[in-house]
Parts: sequence; structure tokens; C-alpha cells
Amino acid sequence: MSQLVAKTPPLSQRDRSTPKLISELCRQFYGLGWVSGTGGGISIRDAEGVWVAPSGVQKERIDPDEVFLLADGVWDRVEILERPRDPALRISECQPLFFNAFRMRDAGAVLHSHSLWAVLAARLACPDGGPGEFRSQNLEMQKGLRGVGCFDELRVPIIPNTARESQLSDSMADAIARYPDVDAVIVAGHGIYVWGRDWVHAKTQAECLDFLMRATVEAHRLGLGPA
Amino acid sequence: MSQLVAKTPPLSQRDRSTPKLISELCRQFYGLGWVSGTGGGISIRDAEGVWVAPSGVQKERIDPDEVFLLADGVWDRVEILERPRDPALRISECQPLFFNAFRMRDAGAVLHSHSLWAVLAARLACPDGGPGEFRSQNLEMQKGLRGVGCFDELRVPIIPNTARESQLSDSMADAIARYPDVDAVIVAGHGIYVWGRDWVHAKTQAECLDFLMRATVEAHRLGLGPA
Amino acid sequence: MSQLVAKTPPLSQRDRSTPKLISELCRQFYGLGWVSGTGGGISIRDAEGVWVAPSGVQKERIDPDEVFLLADGVWDRVEILERPRDPALRISECQPLFFNAFRMRDAGAVLHSHSLWAVLAARLACPDGGPGEFRSQNLEMQKGLRGVGCFDELRVPIIPNTARESQLSDSMADAIARYPDVDAVIVAGHGIYVWGRDWVHAKTQAECLDFLMRATVEAHRLGLGPA
Amino acid sequence: MSQLVAKTPPLSQRDRSTPKLISELCRQFYGLGWVSGTGGGISIRDAEGVWVAPSGVQKERIDPDEVFLLADGVWDRVEILERPRDPALRISECQPLFFNAFRMRDAGAVLHSHSLWAVLAARLACPDGGPGEFRSQNLEMQKGLRGVGCFDELRVPIIPNTARESQLSDSMADAIARYPDVDAVIVAGHGIYVWGRDWVHAKTQAECLDFLMRATVEAHRLGLGPA
Repeated sequence: MSQLVAKTPPLSQRDRSTPKLISELCRQFYGLGWVSGTGGGISIRDAEGVWVAPSGVQKERIDPDEVFLLADGVWDRVEILERPRDPALRISECQPLFFNAFRMRDAGAVLHSHSLWAVLAARLACPDGGPGEFRSQNLEMQKGLRGVGCFDELRVPIIPNTARESQLSDSMADAIARYPDVDAVIVAGHGIYVWGRDWVHAKTQAECLDFLMRATVEAHRLGLGPA
Repeated sequence: MSQLVAKTPPLSQRDRSTPKLISELCRQFYGLGWVSGTGGGISIRDAEGVWVAPSGVQKERIDPDEVFLLADGVWDRVEILERPRDPALRISECQPLFFNAFRMRDAGAVLHSHSLWAVLAARLACPDGGPGEFRSQNLEMQKGLRGVGCFDELRVPIIPNTARESQLSDSMADAIARYPDVDAVIVAGHGIYVWGRDWVHAKTQAECLDFLMRATVEAHRLGLGPA
Repeated sequence: MSQLVAKTPPLSQRDRSTPKLISELCRQFYGLGWVSGTGGGISIRDAEGVWVAPSGVQKERIDPDEVFLLADGVWDRVEILERPRDPALRISECQPLFFNAFRMRDAGAVLHSHSLWAVLAARLACPDGGPGEFRSQNLEMQKGLRGVGCFDELRVPIIPNTARESQLSDSMADAIARYPDVDAVIVAGHGIYVWGRDWVHAKTQAECLDFLMRATVEAHRLGLGPA
Repeated sequence: MSQLVAKTPPLSQRDRSTPKLISELCRQFYGLGWVSGTGGGISIRDAEGVWVAPSGVQKERIDPDEVFLLADGVWDRVEILERPRDPALRISECQPLFFNAFRMRDAGAVLHSHSLWAVLAARLACPDGGPGEFRSQNLEMQKGLRGVGCFDELRVPIIPNTARESQLSDSMADAIARYPDVDAVIVAGHGIYVWGRDWVHAKTQAECLDFLMRATVEAHRLGLGPA
């Protein structure tokens, strides 16, 4: 009990800049078409712990006080340090997938987008729903991705979708293990998970990948093959 | 007369958060391309009654004081509890269609969008103008819709358009009756009606359906069949 | 001279709500992609006279004090009632075209858009650059246009472009005369002029036409003929 | 040393309107899709010197105090008059390319966009990655470009991309020399550099070229040849 009290001090005692940032970024991602229909999500680590957006809420209207705070470094279970006052709010279903990137890559932040371009690029690469790879080459925006040059061939794993988000955990972990140089996993018919050493790196890589996926789809439409 | 007075107290006495919300949502829907050219509409129920946006006004510029308030539960006629000061304003022509969803489904809110994607998806499904069905499968965004899983085949009824919006009432009611598990009706060459248990649910389902209709149109463009 | 003084009282004496509106609408039209690259324009009549945006300026950054005021009813020449303080500013090159709609139709406002959809719809209808017609049918958004039902066939005149905007004046006037039921003229490879009884009507018709032109282009892309 | 001190007075002594403008324009360009993923850049000259945005930062979030100030007229090396307080910030990798336009054309401002339309238009014109030309004709928006009429054939040089941005310097300079009437160079698979006599002229030409490149791509999609 005392421990519980210790874990949930008055809101004022914690640095709340990260939940504020999550609220702001979700509004921006809504404008990019990444999180419509309450889809998508984000999790950012800071000195306070692991902040995770709630599940099934309008992402462009998240209030900083609606963000969960979880214990950092505890990846085998969910240890909640702070929960929103609204008891109806649940932790994002993406939590196990976010934890994959934290545990296996020590990521500082993970984004999950329901971008149309991720869905279409995966359809083109895997008409049967995957598994497979999204490939890109000769595009400058590849340089926004860790360790990738503009003339390299980028390969991002595509995994099949599952009925429930949590069921993606093992296949996503397997893809992460098989692609040590890539900070993203595409889920067929669903979207993409992208992470980075911090939120800026995660967001930058997510924007570059979205551009590359769209450019590949648009080039296909123009009757052009890979660049 | 006294009853009339009782029904129209000074504005200050009513909770006006819903008309404010309607004004805000219409501005957001304009940004999504759902309500350009004064098209589309929205109606939300609250403890005060049924709030309905006016007809033929610029949706991104609706003032909360321009929203009508109708009596809740009175679906066989229109009982106005409060009308905007501007006598030129008329109730949205969608009112009978909104009432269908309130009466038959006890919806808490109904949105009507003139989305380009609804028009194009209906064209692809019904080149002859309908009736017919919009179908989608294997897309994660389906999970934002009541009772639909990502591997289910979603079927949304498409009804032919009519010269006047009010003439759609019977065919929409018939479609609602025939599709008890679906909270939307697409009108060929026109747009889509989407509802939900409350405004958040209605908006979430509208965003998911818009994504699904666009994804289907874009996949067709890419020479891909249903997902 | 005294007359000139009479014509240019201190700014404070005039109702400046219309130039403020023009500044606001131009910012909105920029967001719609209608006035990029300093293209497009707008003119609105009010009790003060005819307000016209300046030529060759960034439309999303027009200051209300940069708008010209011209004498109303004087259509055979340009009688300036008030000019911006910046002597470098010139009246929009669209002025003779705006005057066509004022003189021949007693329009209350005229918009000129450089919408991509106008350019593409004209290309499809007139691969040779015009003259010709943009046609649309069976689309609900047609009802936002004066006298047009959703099952009518809409026909909007397309005229060939000219080296200088002012050279369009005669062919635009001829098209206006030949299409008495239409409040718009499309210029091939250029854009569209749309007017109405007031600015709301002009803007509403411009949004509906932009939707119809885009829907026609997108349907063509999908291998579909006219709706 | 004293000279160094002389060169770096307290921030307050300099006119900081240009770095503020750069921050504002980068936010606007982000909205246009020109600078996602920290891509793209801008440099503007004023009486204080040459202001250059930093490299690899989120362009929609640049703080005016993060902009570098370089000595004007010193094109053979980089003479920094003022650097941001954050020591981690580096000058944009585009600096040598910006200097090409300043040195060879006495440009007042240079923009670098990673627009999707530049990438796709270059792909269509140069499937093999260039060198080549982007061509456009019979489009009104051409008139926003220096010395180009709407019936002229516009030709913009396309150069092949290189592994590092700085390696583009010589081939860009060569293209600038070969196209004295053009204020832009397209880089295949990468984006476009556009300049002008001042920032308004550079931005106007960049918007017009973006429109022209998109219009050309969209026309190709519609099965239409050059206008």
C-alpha cells in the first residue's frame, strides 16, 4: 500500500513534458493521416519511466493526463507507475510491441502508424499478406534511416497481420532479430512500427519510411519499377 | 404558449457544449474533405435534446448559435426546442436520415460525409449507381467498426441517390433494417451516413470507413483486387 | 483634386471587414491548393465598392491593407477609390475577368483558382487546349451549383488560355453569354473562374466545382467513364 | 580574438527577423510535404549576412536561435558570424549548393525541397537516374518563373544524385552554368533546388515548379502526354 502510494505521487511532482509531447505529436500524426480512427500509437521513455498513450482514443485529442506511465526496464510484465484518472482508459494494445523495441533494441521511443502508404506498399510487396520485404533503392530519403545510404537497397521486414495486436508480438520480435540493421517492422494490411534512439530519431525514421513507401507506391502507379 | 416559453429559455440556461462541439467537428471534417461546398452534416444527442447543424451553410464556419435543438424521442415529426436567431437558417435536409439512425438504432450521433472516397468506392462497386455493397477484407482499420474483425469481410450497403435528400429516407431505413450489424449506409454519387452510440464512436467509425474506402480505391488503381 | 481627397478618406472611415475577409479567404484557398505561387485571386463587392486583391503577391500572406478598392458599377474602366500604401502593388491581372462577371451577371464576388483539378479536368476534356466543355452527371455535389440537380448533366465552358490574363476577357465574356445558366468558366492549362450572388455563394460553387472536377479526374484514373 | 568578439555580439544587437522567417517558412514547407524527415533546407541573405538552417533537424520545429549566420560574399569557404548555442547543431549539408546560387546568380534566397513530385517527375524524365531535363509546356503556372511564358517550353536540368549532398556541388554548378535562364536544378531521386532574387521570389518559383512537376506526373497517370 505504502509502496502504491510511493508509486503514485501527486501529478505535480513528476516531469510531465513527455506526456505533453505525446499529446502534441499525436495531433501532428493525425494531420499526417497516421492515426485516424483512434488507430496507431506512441510510447516514449524518459527519466520518469515509459509513457504510453491509451488505447482506442481519438489520437488528435489526447490529454497529457490520459497518458500511462510504466516502469522502465520491466519488460516481462506491465508495471504501472501512474494511470489516468479515467478508469475506462486502457493501455495501448501496442504495449507488447513497443516493449519488443525497448527490450531488444533499447529504443528511446516507438511509433505505430496506420499510414495508408504502409498498407499499400505491403500489398504491392506481399499480395498474399506476407511475410515478405519492402524494398527501396536510390532515394535520398533513405539517408534519414540508420546506416542506410541513398544507393543502398533498403529492406524492411513485412509480417502478416493477426486478429489481435498482442498476437503480433512474437513475429515482430522474430523480424527484429532477423533484421538487426533495421528500426522498423511493417504489418501487412495494418501499418508500421518504427523506433529510434529517442523520439526525434523515431519520428524522423517514420517520416522517411512513409515517404519511401509512398514514393514506391506512386512509382508503381506510373508504371515505373524500383528506382 | 407558456409551454413554448418553457421550451425556449434564454440561451444561457442550456448546456451549450454540444453545439460548440458540432462547430468544432465540422471545422475538422472540412479539413478532411468531408463537408466542402456546404455539403455533409452532423447531429448529436445530449441531455438537452437532438442538436442538428443547419442546412446549406459553410460547415467550417458554423457558429454554435446556428445549431438547431430538436426534441429527443420525437421521431415522427420535427419538434424544434430552439432555433437560431437567423430566421434564414433551415434544419439540415439530412434530418429525416439522422432520425432513421436515432429511431432504428438508438444512435447517439450521426455524421454525413461527402467524402470523395465514398463516391469513388461506390462507383467501383456499383458502376450503375446501385443498389449494392461496399466490401472490404483483411484490413486492420476494420477493427474500428462495431463487431468487425480484421479478417472478416465487411459489407456496407450502397443505396441509389435521389433527387432530394429527404427522398432517401425510406431506402436508407430499408438498408439499415437489412444490415443490422452495420452502422453506415453509402449513397451512390453522394456520400456516406455513419452513426454510433455517441459522437466519438460515430466519428471513429466514419474515419475507419473513409480509410477503408480510400484503401480499396487506391488498391484498385494499383491493379490489386480485394485485400 | 478635392474629389480625389473625397475619394480617399483616412482608412479608419471605411468598413474594412471585406478586405479582412479577403485576406482570410486567400489563406484558406492556399490551404486548398487553389492559389499557390501567387496564382489565383478574388474580388468581392460591398457597400464601399469593389475590393480586389493585388497581383503577384503570396496569397496566404495578404494584409487587408494591401487590397485595392475600386468604384462599383464602373465596368468600362478602372476607377480606384483606394490603393495600398505600397506603391509597388498592382491590381490583380484578373480585374477585367472579374468585371465580366460583375457586369454581365451582377455577381457579388468572383474567385479565380489555379486548382490542379481544373487543369487536369480541362486536359481530359480538351487534349488540344480547348475550346470545349467540362461535363459531369449523377453527382450530389452538383446540387451546390445554381439551378443544377444531381441527375442533370452539368456543362461548364472551357476556353483556351492566352499569353496574358487580360487577353482572356473577350473569350470569357463570350462563354458567359453562351452559358447563361453557369456561373463559371474554365481556362485550359490555367484554372477556373467562379462567381456567385455573394462571396459565400461564389465560394460554395467553387468548392463544389473543384470536387466535381477532381471526382471526374479520379474516376477516369479508375477506368470509369462519366458517372 | 577581438575580431572574433566583434563578430559575435550579443544576440540582441542583430536584426533577427530573417531567422524568425526561416523558422516560419520551414513550418509551412513541412505542411507542403517538402521537408519531412528533417530533409530539405533554406538559406536567406539579408543585411546581417547569410542565414542558413541547421542540418538534420525537424524542419517544422526550428527555433530562430538555431539558425546559423554566415559571412556574405565569402563563397570559397564558410565564415561563421554566429552559431547556435547548441554545439551539436551543424550547418546544413546544402551549404555548398546554396553558395552556388549565391555566387553564380547573386540569389537572395535558396530553397531545397524533398518534394515527392520532384522525385517522381525526375523518375519519369530520367528512368536511369539522369542527367536529363524536366520539360513542361502550356501551363499558366509557368508564368511564375523568371522569363517563362505559359506557351514556352520550360526546361529544368536534372542531375544525378550523389552519395553525399556536398558532392553535388560541381554538377549543380555545371547545370547552373548551362541553364542561365533557369533558377532551379532537380536532383534525381532526391529533390529540387530553387532560388530567386529574394525569399518571396524563391518561394514563388518553388511553388510554381512543384505545381508543374505534379501536374506533369498526374497527366502521365491519366495517359496524357505533355500539355
